[in-house]
Amino acid sequence: MKYAKVSGELPGPIASDVIAVLKKNCYDSTFTYPLVIASGSGCVVKDIDGNSFLDFTSNIGACPLGYSHPDVIGVLAEMSRNGAHKIAGQDFYCKEHADLAEQFVSVLPDGFKAFFINSGAEAVENAIKIAYRKRFAEGLPVLPGVSCTGGFHGRTLGALSFTYSKPVQKAGFPELAVMRIKFCTTDGDEEIDAVEKVLAENKAAFVLTEIVQGEGGYNIASRRFVQNLRNATKKYGVPLILDEVQSGMGRTGKWWAFEHYGVLPDIMSAAKALQVGATAYRSDYDPGQPGVLSSTWGGGSRIDLAVGTTVIEVIKRDRLLANALVMGERLKKGLADLVGKKNGIIDVRGLGLMIGIEFDTKESRDWALQQAFRRGLLLLPAGQKAMRAIPPLVVTGEEVDEGLELMASL
Amino acid sequence: MKYAKVSGELPGPIASDVIAVLKKNCYDSTFTYPLVIASGSGCVVKDIDGNSFLDFTSNIGACPLGYSHPDVIGVLAEMSRNGAHKIAGQDFYCKEHADLAEQFVSVLPDGFKAFFINSGAEAVENAIKIAYRKRFAEGLPVLPGVSCTGGFHGRTLGALSFTYSKPVQKAGFPELAVMRIKFCTTDGDEEIDAVEKVLAENKAAFVLTEIVQGEGGYNIASRRFVQNLRNATKKYGVPLILDEVQSGMGRTGKWWAFEHYGVLPDIMSAAKALQVGATAYRSDYDPGQPGVLSSTWGGGSRIDLAVGTTVIEVIKRDRLLANALVMGERLKKGLADLVGKKNGIIDVRGLGLMIGIEFDTKESRDWALQQAFRRGLLLLPAGQKAMRAIPPLVVTGEEVDEGLELMASL
Repeated sequence: MKYAKVSGELPGPIASDVIAVLKKNCYDSTFTYPLVIASGSGCVVKDIDGNSFLDFTSNIGACPLGYSHPDVIGVLAEMSRNGAHKIAGQDFYCKEHADLAEQFVSVLPDGFKAFFINSGAEAVENAIKIAYRKRFAEGLPVLPGVSCTGGFHGRTLGALSFTYSKPVQKAGFPELAVMRIKFCTTDGDEEIDAVEKVLAENKAAFVLTEIVQGEGGYNIASRRFVQNLRNATKKYGVPLILDEVQSGMGRTGKWWAFEHYGVLPDIMSAAKALQVGATAYRSDYDPGQPGVLSSTWGGGSRIDLAVGTTVIEVIKRDRLLANALVMGERLKKGLADLVGKKNGIIDVRGLGLMIGIEFDTKESRDWALQQAFRRGLLLLPAGQKAMRAIPPLVVTGEEVDEGLELMASL
Repeated sequence: MKYAKVSGELPGPIASDVIAVLKKNCYDSTFTYPLVIASGSGCVVKDIDGNSFLDFTSNIGACPLGYSHPDVIGVLAEMSRNGAHKIAGQDFYCKEHADLAEQFVSVLPDGFKAFFINSGAEAVENAIKIAYRKRFAEGLPVLPGVSCTGGFHGRTLGALSFTYSKPVQKAGFPELAVMRIKFCTTDGDEEIDAVEKVLAENKAAFVLTEIVQGEGGYNIASRRFVQNLRNATKKYGVPLILDEVQSGMGRTGKWWAFEHYGVLPDIMSAAKALQVGATAYRSDYDPGQPGVLSSTWGGGSRIDLAVGTTVIEVIKRDRLLANALVMGERLKKGLADLVGKKNGIIDVRGLGLMIGIEFDTKESRDWALQQAFRRGLLLLPAGQKAMRAIPPLVVTGEEVDEGLELMASL
């Protein structure tokens, strides 16, 4: 292999020590396999023992330009000489905040504004707050929000109320008032009109959904389902919040997954590839009054803001949306060839470089993840028995082909 | 003035342009005055037009070592050469996560563990989740939490439910079930035993409070109030969550404000000076099962994790807790001399370098903030009519004295 080079047992000796220190002192979270990341270059991640892995995770999409991208390294070098690299960004201004705002707004629907925050969960929290705040300004009561089965919107308790992915994420926690509808992946689904009934009968404050479910299993919404959501929310005067934390910023070959469906949201969330969290909204949703939304580090993590600006500039300059479409097709086609032949793969689906691989059982999926890791290919789980293949947007044909070769060899 | 040097109108021409771009594209948040931060050195912040300000805000306590601290600059230089500077830190490991865990646990109560996250709000969200998760594991029902009047715990909807500071922060938003008790600042307060009644009568899932209220107005809890909280929560088997996001990490001259009171929490939150959010808990509160808590960037913002480790190391090495006590006394004494004499200052209070200045009216306070800014001294509001004076922990006597001179000159 040209990119993947693993020698010896994993984790290696240095990685084992790091992991032991972490397990002693910290909660043991969602670690799929024992990878201790040291550095990286292109689409290759190096671990702390010197092994190289071809990365088809992009750190859950958060490294869209891969590693050691020259433009990013340039920004880091410049920002690291600045002695005030992390400020209270909604109490004091900085140029990096304004620069990212300009770039970000340039890829949003016309007339949208932005609010920067620290994570995808916080981006969704603020989307919800913006929806409720407009109701408050209009003298309307607090009502439940609507979200979809299988949806994942973050783990803070507001966003988590509208999450319905894995039971372990919610068990024992209180939640805000929520109503659920089925996330439909086929136009023929008999529940595809459910939103109309919910909005007509119950009255709701908003509808919140992903277009391509991430954590929930890389499920792609049906075209009619999304269009029904848009039509019904418009009819009943309820905002449609589209969560693009994982699917946005070029992942699907367009800036936003909703562009594949010919609809626009009223409010939306972004994060991961953007390097910071962001809530965006049509300007009539602006809270107007200062102090409604804020956060110490929102708009103030200057390194992340500057890298985020560079991410957008590079995606534009290097035509990475087109690359995501071309490489996504190549990867999807190669994976589709393994359906029914290899290790329990039963379905491959995706938009652009956001590709889900469904297995026959959870055990098959988990086995494949571990085997791929040991051969030097990084993938992540999604849902109950799927895995996600989401290489950096800069991935080349040669890298896609090596990933396919590794998958075929398991 | 040696440190504060402002020439001409504020904002200057470059700052005006940056602010105009931001206002065009973004929600206009909690900006007190038009400061566009460019860089900094020691306790001095430079704006983008070249004006210098003596900083008594530490960016709301988030810059405890001031600006361009040589140890921080060293870390930034090293991390900026790393091509994988921001990873999915609860899916993959990195050494910076383990290093911060070791240092952080070394300043926590014995037997505590940590969970790193992106912000103070997320640190509180996870503290609440950890409390509820233990109830779930023990088969106990979901019950409301208890928090204090004037408390501020963050703006995500879970943390915000337990916040009760300014109406604008909550108006129109749904909240989780909560019961409120009065935050008592004097031992003689007749409501000081209220917690006992609430816990006995209503049954609650936890009690959450600050020891020194930050956003709420720099109110210092009475000794008996805190000890009553600890005794009552112990008696009724309910966890006491202490929110140290603003007061922790040496701000009050001890690592944690609760050390001034001779009590220990069961669960606690930290952020700001730590550079990342953190929830800490006595190890019997560990959720045990993987997947209960997570976050893409929690434990993975390697630059912030590495700077956080350095902050703890430098506070220890350079005896900054002692400096906070000495300089805090000097600043408090100098400010106390202005009570009744100057601009409506009616009270000065604080622990270490966490000092509140109470004014007779909101207008007096707001006028003083603007005047101080125009003369080159940065302060921030707190509560209805107080301001906070929270210089970096590295502040010198000379800097304290210049700040006092500027305050006296308003």
